[in-house]
Amino acid sequence: MALSEQEVSELCRIRDDSSKDFIFQQTMYRIKDPRKTLPFYSGVLGMTLLQKLDFPEAKFSLYFMGYENKKNIPFDNQKRTAWAMSQKATLELTHNWGTEDTEGQIYHNGNADPRGFGHIGIMVPDVNVACERFESLGVEFVKKPNDGRMKGLAFIQDPDGYWIEIFNANTICN
Amino acid sequence: MALSEQEVSELCRIRDDSSKDFIFQQTMYRIKDPRKTLPFYSGVLGMTLLQKLDFPEAKFSLYFMGYENKKNIPFDNQKRTAWAMSQKATLELTHNWGTEDTEGQIYHNGNADPRGFGHIGIMVPDVNVACERFESLGVEFVKKPNDGRMKGLAFIQDPDGYWIEIFNANTICN
Repeated sequence: MALSEQEVSELCRIRDDSSKDFIFQQTMYRIKDPRKTLPFYSGVLGMTLLQKLDFPEAKFSLYFMGYENKKNIPFDNQKRTAWAMSQKATLELTHNWGTEDTEGQIYHNGNADPRGFGHIGIMVPDVNVACERFESLGVEFVKKPNDGRMKGLAFIQDPDGYWIEIFNANTICN
Repeated sequence: MALSEQEVSELCRIRDDSSKDFIFQQTMYRIKDPRKTLPFYSGVLGMTLLQKLDFPEAKFSLYFMGYENKKNIPFDNQKRTAWAMSQKATLELTHNWGTEDTEGQIYHNGNADPRGFGHIGIMVPDVNVACERFESLGVEFVKKPNDGRMKGLAFIQDPDGYWIEIFNANTICN
């Protein structure tokens, strides 16, 4: 059963003053092949590559993506890293070198057992317009805007099969 | 091997004008028991409950959490929903009713096979100060700030075992 409003209100603690400057900076998931993932998050979803970090000893790279203006990227590389990791709402995509040579999907999107993580969500000005464009670009859909009971919102999949909700807050609630 | 700077630059497409107003709004994962999770994200991590939505037919509730000022929450409930779903960098916590009656952990955090999702990350002003407080509150640590090679950053776990990186962009890069 749903929790009552009163119980929810009591469960939500007063924020401690020491956490007032915390920011929700990143969501990390693993990707198999940046040659597929980078064009998707930049070209299809319109994100900017904020910074790329290579870790040769541990054989992986991190790609930070987000909706920041390219013009704000600092020229100095160390400043760029600190800047990228200070922006709200970024994706941290982890590429373990060599995974791109494996056939088929290698990562688990969390929506079949064992479940856990579900999706990220992108708010767009017009769901139908955005989804028509995604279709024309060959994007995979889990749910198109008019499928099922929840009209006006869609779920697409990235090259690894992770789910991305496409919605607009002002039309989803009608 | 790492991709070259030039290849990465070519893989990152120019943003289509239609995606210029997209925002990375939410990261969704499933939680077993809001009676444990709500005090954690509010009291320990300092987030605000932006909105709660109940879906009695499908027997689940959604809790949107984020670092927004409580004073900005609209009084009208429908406006509150649209507002909550328009903020950048929110967590959408899905509670399927009844899961709280199962013993032990029921969700998969993505960091053991099958892997995929890794963590969310919270930037804090001072990692040591934040982690000392988390310790005093009995929070589970995957990695304390001085463990291992990556000094100055920590990983904690929420009540479902999801990983949360605690870092500061200006000290992580030194």
